[in-house]
Amino acid sequence: MARCRMCREKATVFIPHHRLPLCDEHLVSWFERYLQRTITKFKMFPPHAKILVAVSGGKDSLVLWQALVNLGYQADGVFIDLGINEFSLLSRRVSENFAENLGRKLHLISLPKELGFGIPALKRRTRKYCSLCGSIKRYFLNRATRTLGYDVLVTGHNLDDEASALLGNVINWSLKYLARKYPVLPENNGFVRKAKPLCRFTSFEIREYAKRQKIKYLTERCPLSPEATRLVYAEIMDRLEEQMPGTKIRFYMDYLRQLYPLLQEKVEDFLDRDLVRCEVCGEPAVSSPCFVCRLKEEFRSQGI
Amino acid sequence: MARCRMCREKATVFIPHHRLPLCDEHLVSWFERYLQRTITKFKMFPPHAKILVAVSGGKDSLVLWQALVNLGYQADGVFIDLGINEFSLLSRRVSENFAENLGRKLHLISLPKELGFGIPALKRRTRKYCSLCGSIKRYFLNRATRTLGYDVLVTGHNLDDEASALLGNVINWSLKYLARKYPVLPENNGFVRKAKPLCRFTSFEIREYAKRQKIKYLTERCPLSPEATRLVYAEIMDRLEEQMPGTKIRFYMDYLRQLYPLLQEKVEDFLDRDLVRCEVCGEPAVSSPCFVCRLKEEFRSQGI
Repeated sequence: MARCRMCREKATVFIPHHRLPLCDEHLVSWFERYLQRTITKFKMFPPHAKILVAVSGGKDSLVLWQALVNLGYQADGVFIDLGINEFSLLSRRVSENFAENLGRKLHLISLPKELGFGIPALKRRTRKYCSLCGSIKRYFLNRATRTLGYDVLVTGHNLDDEASALLGNVINWSLKYLARKYPVLPENNGFVRKAKPLCRFTSFEIREYAKRQKIKYLTERCPLSPEATRLVYAEIMDRLEEQMPGTKIRFYMDYLRQLYPLLQEKVEDFLDRDLVRCEVCGEPAVSSPCFVCRLKEEFRSQGI
Repeated sequence: MARCRMCREKATVFIPHHRLPLCDEHLVSWFERYLQRTITKFKMFPPHAKILVAVSGGKDSLVLWQALVNLGYQADGVFIDLGINEFSLLSRRVSENFAENLGRKLHLISLPKELGFGIPALKRRTRKYCSLCGSIKRYFLNRATRTLGYDVLVTGHNLDDEASALLGNVINWSLKYLARKYPVLPENNGFVRKAKPLCRFTSFEIREYAKRQKIKYLTERCPLSPEATRLVYAEIMDRLEEQMPGTKIRFYMDYLRQLYPLLQEKVEDFLDRDLVRCEVCGEPAVSSPCFVCRLKEEFRSQGI
């Protein structure tokens, strides 16, 4: 192993992506500096913003939270209990322990309490439960960020996530999704400002930071997740990265630089659909009642 | 095996792509009808056009030529001898035999005669010989089509070629190439009209047609071709197709329908670069002398 680029001590990790050998200490400082540069580059939020981190108990969200606090940001967490038995209990415990050590507040949202049912019940009724779970989480995260008075919601999506999702959207030419694929989305019409500060970090870099910060995170994946197709795209990107190192970051950043601006001008129609307010819950929605209120009513009327 | 969709006789092939079981006879008629529909759909050329087919001796170009002639088109061939020893001799013999059986004219272009050197000499001088060979072929095919008085140059690119090239252009966001990726390009500024009538056919369908038409084609690949990266993209598309049948055609056609028109409006700058005429050979080029004349001069001055 080579010497640390910063201090010339023995390096303990090599970041292939940036061709950077680093020691433990400078891996941490490099990570946090690069995170700050990403936040600044994409104008994600100002230094004094009140930040809410969507926390799952996995490595990405905990690393993001830790690094933001280390950088001096006011960042609290929010955890959604999806009602997936042991898995949800465990994730919650990991997140609560982490919050306590960090000395920051963790807000809790319980789907069983809010909806009257958890994701397992949803799975018994529809095959689309996985994407529906994503929409439900976005609904409650958006509402919590707004009603609790935070300025921005941040999520732990990393480069591997973003590159493989981008590939999926490209293979299917989902212009509607492509046009919204950006590391920061401004507040708009009841939707809070959202940012993905880890969008330029690989899973590998995040794990290395977690190790050195001694972060105890959950490695289990959601037991209900099928994620077959998502995995196909992730594996393809991993393979391309292996054969042509740097492919992921180039694919993602060049998209943002080159195609994204083109799509913005042309597909505004997609984005400026007339949004309404849900007459039941008051949240922004494409129609009223919104999908969450309709789902709740459906379950209630059938006495489930 | 099911029954033929057309005549209810026993099917001898199943086209997964169109979920179509067919007998020998109706595979051929389906293939030619679908080819005609592709030509019409993209307004490639009118019924009485004088067509020049770029012939390599491989399955794609021979099948294209055969099917066009069967459909009643006036289609001649043009073969480029690349000077790759046995391989070029063999390709040429296969192409000449085929032309004779078909009863159509085959024009010959010899790189060693035209340039004073073949591709093996080029390979000894530059690592970019493979893409340079592509450019050289396009130069001579374009010139031959124009000077011999044909209306359109057609090439045997199939769906597998187009989908994997599209993926490569997308992974690298080569907007310049993406903006020119269309099954037909109009005549423009000394560049002849070009079309890819097989762009909606898979390799499998083309091989099945070749079998039933008893076409003797060359299966050898160019012995000089490295094609490592091209293969990566081809394998990825094959894998996606296997996991999600129909991916290739959707990826390609949705690109043409959705993204291509957007790029046209925005990137005209790329396409309307000021073209000049080469002062040496008179061909259209981005600068004068053109790359072919410069290459010839370079070899000549060094007495190779």
